[in-house]
Amino acid sequence: MKIKLISIGKIKDKWIEQAIDEYSKRLTKFINFESIELADFKASSSLSSEEIKSKETEKLSQELVKHSGDILILDEKGKDFTSNEFAKLLQTKLNSSQDLIFVIGGAYGFTEEFKKNKNLICLSKMTFTHRMAKLIILEQIYRGFTIINNHPYHNN
Amino acid sequence: MKIKLISIGKIKDKWIEQAIDEYSKRLTKFINFESIELADFKASSSLSSEEIKSKETEKLSQELVKHSGDILILDEKGKDFTSNEFAKLLQTKLNSSQDLIFVIGGAYGFTEEFKKNKNLICLSKMTFTHRMAKLIILEQIYRGFTIINNHPYHNN
Repeated sequence: MKIKLISIGKIKDKWIEQAIDEYSKRLTKFINFESIELADFKASSSLSSEEIKSKETEKLSQELVKHSGDILILDEKGKDFTSNEFAKLLQTKLNSSQDLIFVIGGAYGFTEEFKKNKNLICLSKMTFTHRMAKLIILEQIYRGFTIINNHPYHNN
Repeated sequence: MKIKLISIGKIKDKWIEQAIDEYSKRLTKFINFESIELADFKASSSLSSEEIKSKETEKLSQELVKHSGDILILDEKGKDFTSNEFAKLLQTKLNSSQDLIFVIGGAYGFTEEFKKNKNLICLSKMTFTHRMAKLIILEQIYRGFTIINNHPYHNN
């Protein structure tokens, strides 16, 4: 089993790159992990926000075709979890042999069409930048594995 | 009016220090902001988690006596907000002339006694390290001010 994190938008800030590197490294002690970043459409912006959302969702869909596994979409309308509940979800997935694929959208999120019949999860009622969302989900995946493995991180 | 962020536990990671510096700087374009970090009790650890919680809460209480203003405690049992609701809360506080003081506890949180009759707010059902909590609340305060000031950050 492998965990993949597919996101739209390259990380430009050095600090967040370092943070993501750190948690990625820590995570690989527990599980095979891969991060895939797709370029966003913002730079070429004669596009409206709806057009960007549509193009970025299309790009993600095309990427997802290349992967097989259980897909979890980060979306503000998704189900929210405590860290312990999230660890249980990870444990359930671990017991299956499927890969687990987390998807983070761009600044305007996903089209409604794309989200239909998909599993949506939510980090917080608050809105985060996609960079912060990436950092937070990584930290929660790592935290989840420390909970599963009785590692002291979660309680410190 | 001034915003103060009082937390227990010095930030040791370079990346999170950079991140907090960046958001602190951005925030001061909108509002007078001050971060106060108190040392935690973890290093000297012949103490149990209950003792650390109690000592750290006491330290925070002693610090809070030096400040006057509206106090908001970050706690997992607190009220949760969307970013827009949080911006409205900030706006309401802005209209009063009081300082606004956010408090982040240490690894074991606050004593029940301390939390009594205080305003508790919650970032997410998920548990974060206090460092991540500090980064997230700072980003949300900044985001709140961009919402209040119609700055494009929130929608980008």
